[in-house]
Amino acid sequence: MPRWMRYAHNGQTAYGTLEGDVVHAHRGDPFSGAEPTGRTLQLVEVDLLAPCQPGKIIALWNNFRQLAAKLNQPVPEEPLYLLKAPTTVARPGAEIRRPRTYDGRIVFEGELGIVIGRSCKEASEDEARQAILGYTCVNDITAADILNRDPSFPQWARAKSFDGFCPFGPAIATELDLGKVVVRTLLDGAERQNYALSDAVFQPARLVSLLSRDMTLLPGDLICMGTSLGVGTMKGPVNTVEVVIDGVGTLRNVI
Amino acid sequence: MPRWMRYAHNGQTAYGTLEGDVVHAHRGDPFSGAEPTGRTLQLVEVDLLAPCQPGKIIALWNNFRQLAAKLNQPVPEEPLYLLKAPTTVARPGAEIRRPRTYDGRIVFEGELGIVIGRSCKEASEDEARQAILGYTCVNDITAADILNRDPSFPQWARAKSFDGFCPFGPAIATELDLGKVVVRTLLDGAERQNYALSDAVFQPARLVSLLSRDMTLLPGDLICMGTSLGVGTMKGPVNTVEVVIDGVGTLRNVI
Repeated sequence: MPRWMRYAHNGQTAYGTLEGDVVHAHRGDPFSGAEPTGRTLQLVEVDLLAPCQPGKIIALWNNFRQLAAKLNQPVPEEPLYLLKAPTTVARPGAEIRRPRTYDGRIVFEGELGIVIGRSCKEASEDEARQAILGYTCVNDITAADILNRDPSFPQWARAKSFDGFCPFGPAIATELDLGKVVVRTLLDGAERQNYALSDAVFQPARLVSLLSRDMTLLPGDLICMGTSLGVGTMKGPVNTVEVVIDGVGTLRNVI
Repeated sequence: MPRWMRYAHNGQTAYGTLEGDVVHAHRGDPFSGAEPTGRTLQLVEVDLLAPCQPGKIIALWNNFRQLAAKLNQPVPEEPLYLLKAPTTVARPGAEIRRPRTYDGRIVFEGELGIVIGRSCKEASEDEARQAILGYTCVNDITAADILNRDPSFPQWARAKSFDGFCPFGPAIATELDLGKVVVRTLLDGAERQNYALSDAVFQPARLVSLLSRDMTLLPGDLICMGTSLGVGTMKGPVNTVEVVIDGVGTLRNVI
């Protein structure tokens, strides 16, 4: 069960698989075909990059029953989502800066991300399952005070699309026991989120199938599954947020 | 004042400039540099493509005073927008099909599109003006019955992101007298929209400057300026919609 990662080393960008702290370098990419070069590197030798370059980022709203119950929201009948700009992508470890033009609350949301491996449109659940390359950790960052400041129009896309507001990684796990996935988020070392994927209204294969009826999903597209209890605001001038999913790894960013 | 277009001919994709019905073939592209090959083609010999491949599509809501007045909406204090998926792009002349999973109203919106020519972030209005490659015609198509069918969440991104819901072209006009631009939309030959860009709340340079504070704009990004009076629903099983802007051309699609 390879974990794909992308890295820069000596000015070159490449894909590799991760075993412990060892990177197995590959030629090509996991979307169109990759093969090991035979070379290995230590993780500390390379600069981790976001594990792919999504052409689109779909972010679910209200996809977890526990959060819906807390917020008195009905369980949705269909996936409710917005789009984040591809320019939000940030690499694991990146320092993410507050937008110069915004001084309000910035909120972290630890999420499981689905990475699409092959083009899919109007896919059945089985086809959708096969179209998924794997899973990653996402911090779906939001400029919360923008969201509803204009009473006539909810600014979802804008509040979630500042540069750097979608760090993900450190890797794409191609096999994950979805029934056991737990998403944990730590703010400055203290656990703030700890929720099970099993609570999600729309599970990955069903979600990808439904989304593929709306739009063609392409290799590298990222679907952020939505978040649950424990979302919070970053307090100090500098915050470290970690999103931890066993089998994927830890996504750590300073914000 | 070149009008850039992109086309396929003998299995090759290329950029060209358009003079009347004559295409002047180019090497390269207008974003990173293009030069004429000296070869000319007749427009009828080539297959027109969407004039670029946007990494993101930003679509303005409520940006025209006349429409705001009609809908009793306040004039917005800041640009209000959503994102359309890049998979919505369709070429001029493309037949756009109703999504298989949707049988509600489909609405056309004739708009002026801004195409970004060079990367810009936190740009002044002057810098923004220089970052604009040019202007194009857009039909910002919407599955109107999806928009508000879930009372808890307005589905802007979804309603506007079905495959083919963003035809644009036929060309990118690099010089346009913005004070005189009129957007006309014809449904099956009958004029349904006829409005002046001068009525827009946020004019192009100011709009690009403001958007560039939210996110880095990249070459090829498309900004749909929003629409005004006369938006309408397509009636029959087959509809021809034309968006006409003098100096840009006519974007014609069958839906």
